[in-house]
Amino acid sequence: MITSNSNPRVKQIVQWRNKAKERAGAGIFLTEGFKMFGEAPQELIREVYISVDILRREEPGWDIREKLDRSGYETVSEEVFRKMSDTLNPQGILCVMERPKYTLEDMLAEKTPLLMMLENLQDPGNLGTIVRTAEGAGATGIIMGSSTVDIYNPKTIRATMGSVFRVPFVYVQDLGRAAALLQEKQIRVYAAHLDGTKYYDDFSYEQGCAFLIGNEGNGLSRELADRADLYLKIPMEGSVESLNAAVTASILMYEAHRQRRRASHFQDSSS
Amino acid sequence: MITSNSNPRVKQIVQWRNKAKERAGAGIFLTEGFKMFGEAPQELIREVYISVDILRREEPGWDIREKLDRSGYETVSEEVFRKMSDTLNPQGILCVMERPKYTLEDMLAEKTPLLMMLENLQDPGNLGTIVRTAEGAGATGIIMGSSTVDIYNPKTIRATMGSVFRVPFVYVQDLGRAAALLQEKQIRVYAAHLDGTKYYDDFSYEQGCAFLIGNEGNGLSRELADRADLYLKIPMEGSVESLNAAVTASILMYEAHRQRRRASHFQDSSS
Repeated sequence: MITSNSNPRVKQIVQWRNKAKERAGAGIFLTEGFKMFGEAPQELIREVYISVDILRREEPGWDIREKLDRSGYETVSEEVFRKMSDTLNPQGILCVMERPKYTLEDMLAEKTPLLMMLENLQDPGNLGTIVRTAEGAGATGIIMGSSTVDIYNPKTIRATMGSVFRVPFVYVQDLGRAAALLQEKQIRVYAAHLDGTKYYDDFSYEQGCAFLIGNEGNGLSRELADRADLYLKIPMEGSVESLNAAVTASILMYEAHRQRRRASHFQDSSS
Repeated sequence: MITSNSNPRVKQIVQWRNKAKERAGAGIFLTEGFKMFGEAPQELIREVYISVDILRREEPGWDIREKLDRSGYETVSEEVFRKMSDTLNPQGILCVMERPKYTLEDMLAEKTPLLMMLENLQDPGNLGTIVRTAEGAGATGIIMGSSTVDIYNPKTIRATMGSVFRVPFVYVQDLGRAAALLQEKQIRVYAAHLDGTKYYDDFSYEQGCAFLIGNEGNGLSRELADRADLYLKIPMEGSVESLNAAVTASILMYEAHRQRRRASHFQDSSS
């Protein structure tokens, strides 16, 4: 059991938690909580730390014991766990995870891609919410410009509610170039843009398509917006000038899902 | 000019910023930033504080000077402003606003209500995002249970991006009773619920309707869900069990807007 905050492994975790560069250099990310541990792909789990009080508790539905035994784990004192944790009310389990490897090429090989392209998104919670909604809406991948917030930020990871393990994503140096690659594959690139003259629900998303989403404060850069095949507009009543980036992304992804569902791309599980 | 952090007005602002009860007792709320000041209804502005460096700056589009002269303002030192402000990068303008007064009766008197009913929502950012999207989607009001987070929380106010000045809202002791009042007026009450057998886009929202949205972690209480006329389901692919509360609310409001727009409730401003 680790009981000292100055233990090198504890210091390492704290550094990984706070520094995106250190996490990237090690090729890892951190997750916390039982839900995340339960959903973590076994092959990506590198290290598991649990707070000593967790083992003492008699949890009724303790079905992760087997997973703990398989992955192995290190016990730490409650104080050490609080030091390692990113949250005010730590759940007592933290994992060091290997980063999954996705490629743009794999994303483009999908039969009917539904892709999100995020330019310079800055809010970790927004990004996490988009990843979570993307899985729900059946999106096939997320392509991010290099200035978009780190998807491995602990706040982002938490907001994905586990979807980060299942939705493919890549960072690219040049989103404009990525858009051109999509277009070569007949994937339509739509920009949510105030200059749009048609509403988002006036387009068909049944074929491969991608949505460009811009920065929270400034929207899409002119340069990238110019690369879109089409501009779409989300109607806004009152004095609203824009919607939250995650809300915009969600409305578009669920409109695509609605159309694809009605065209039977997805199994209809309603009775 | 106020230059001391121990000035009683400065202390009062800090207390209002930190304590929901104090804000409620005084019948006020705080807003920060130029956008919020620009959109604030003149008749609700009680006090305005600006940082001295703001007046020194030569802003090109300084069209709020007139509004400042009308409302009156107090200049404070930069240090004092940082003390009063809720943000890391203060914009240099803070208002004490009188609370608007809305009633459930007024909301029910709307011709075709589109209402959100929020039970025990806890995240200030989620609530603010719902208020912002509500204005965009043409929702006519927000009804909140008394355990829902304070709409006058500085984080909520900020996330509304000014919509808090324009979307009617009320807190009620008993959401179940409020639902019954809506139903008496032929307003259909829908609950987003896992037990729903029909998808959200299989209902018509062209007539008066309301959506029940539950707590981020636990969803709707059984008790309140039982009061709904109908359960609806948002389809979810993959392993997603639920969506973010603000995302759920946004998808539902924009589906209602889409249907109402197509039925010409809203002026179509697209060409």
